[in-house]
Amino acid sequence: MPNDQLQMLLTQTPEEGYKLAVKLAQKGIELTQPSEEIRQMLRPVYSRNPDSLIAASQVVAIHFQTVAAANNYWRMWTPLYR
Amino acid sequence: MPNDQLQMLLTQTPEEGYKLAVKLAQKGIELTQPSEEIRQMLRPVYSRNPDSLIAASQVVAIHFQTVAAANNYWRMWTPLYR
Amino acid sequence: MPNDQLQMLLTQTPEEGYKLAVKLAQKGIELTQPSEEIRQMLRPVYSRNPDSLIAASQVVAIHFQTVAAANNYWRMWTPLYR
Amino acid sequence: MPNDQLQMLLTQTPEEGYKLAVKLAQKGIELTQPSEEIRQMLRPVYSRNPDSLIAASQVVAIHFQTVAAANNYWRMWTPLYR
Amino acid sequence: MPNDQLQMLLTQTPEEGYKLAVKLAQKGIELTQPSEEIRQMLRPVYSRNPDSLIAASQVVAIHFQTVAAANNYWRMWTPLYR
Amino acid sequence: MPNDQLQMLLTQTPEEGYKLAVKLAQKGIELTQPSEEIRQMLRPVYSRNPDSLIAASQVVAIHFQTVAAANNYWRMWTPLYR
Repeated sequence: MPNDQLQMLLTQTPEEGYKLAVKLAQKGIELTQPSEEIRQMLRPVYSRNPDSLIAASQVVAIHFQTVAAANNYWRMWTPLYR
Repeated sequence: MPNDQLQMLLTQTPEEGYKLAVKLAQKGIELTQPSEEIRQMLRPVYSRNPDSLIAASQVVAIHFQTVAAANNYWRMWTPLYR
Repeated sequence: MPNDQLQMLLTQTPEEGYKLAVKLAQKGIELTQPSEEIRQMLRPVYSRNPDSLIAASQVVAIHFQTVAAANNYWRMWTPLYR
Repeated sequence: MPNDQLQMLLTQTPEEGYKLAVKLAQKGIELTQPSEEIRQMLRPVYSRNPDSLIAASQVVAIHFQTVAAANNYWRMWTPLYR
Repeated sequence: MPNDQLQMLLTQTPEEGYKLAVKLAQKGIELTQPSEEIRQMLRPVYSRNPDSLIAASQVVAIHFQTVAAANNYWRMWTPLYR
Repeated sequence: MPNDQLQMLLTQTPEEGYKLAVKLAQKGIELTQPSEEIRQMLRPVYSRNPDSLIAASQVVAIHFQTVAAANNYWRMWTPLYR
């Protein structure tokens, strides 16, 4: 599906970058378990397990590092030193 | 909700940067489990489990890396070498 | 097998880069468990376990960091600041 | 409490940097479980569980990466190449 | 044993770099459990446990980041922008 | 004890750098569990558990990233491109 293809990692804001990081994390799960049906079945399991939620949040954090670096951290200026 | 939107990753101090990292970690959990009610129910579970606490602290650590890099580590000067 | 050899980390798009990251993650598993037969046997186990799926997605995320950096994040331009 | 505020990430030595990394890891746990009493109760549990100790050490490792980068790895000189 | 010593992190190709990453991951295990006999005994356990395989693959992924950065990602050219 | 203090992160070779990474990982465990006696008691437990060994190896991998970066990857030259 074309709009599922990653076109680029650039986003206008950190907020959009965070959403892209979430999408990247989900993509990893979809590629390992391609069945939408099974994924839907698993969702209530992990979304009520605090350790799963924390683990999912960690994958997002790793992707957000990548997206943030790709966007030069959405900086408009560079801190003034030296 | 507008004030939940990430506007930028720049903060005045490492202390504020750390708080932003915590917010980024929570955001990941909220996006996976949007129900405030369920999250409140899970809180006493993971906040008394040392392994969950360590895992949550790790997600914060990963986001703090991102925020710290975005802020050039809040450096005012560059070390003098060469 | 020649086409299993990693030639380079450069890809045309983030989408292809993501696929390379998945391949890199699988390579790690294949080197630890070389038997195709055993891996096939394990697949239904971990692909229906949400925590395994999240963990697998995390390995992909780490490799995607590497591939994205190798490709300079597929940027065509550098943000205008300073 | 003022002296709990992170003022900066710069330290004189890697040793002090490591201690700051430990402090950053603890801060993550304190923000998730603010009760000193509960944390004291959990301490004997995780400090005798090897997996918890390894996990805690990992959080410190991630923060040490950040602190080390912030301090340009406490280098006094740059290696001579090219 | 001399040929077990890490001489440098440079390799000719990503493929060789990946093998070095695997070696670095094994080195970590050998230093914690020096007994070849015990390690051989543990091998059938973790090599048939999908979660162990994923975890082992993650350690390789982290080392591959290091090796790839050391080799400037085996790039022959730099992308043309600005 | 003075010789337990981290003086710097520079080493002559990757081999020494790896040993420093191991030392950094152990330091994290020692700071969380200061009792040498308890640590000795736990050692046979985790050194025979494959998942603990993999987790310990991961902490070393993270520290090795830091040490390798501090040493500019022990490069003597920069790859010729451009």
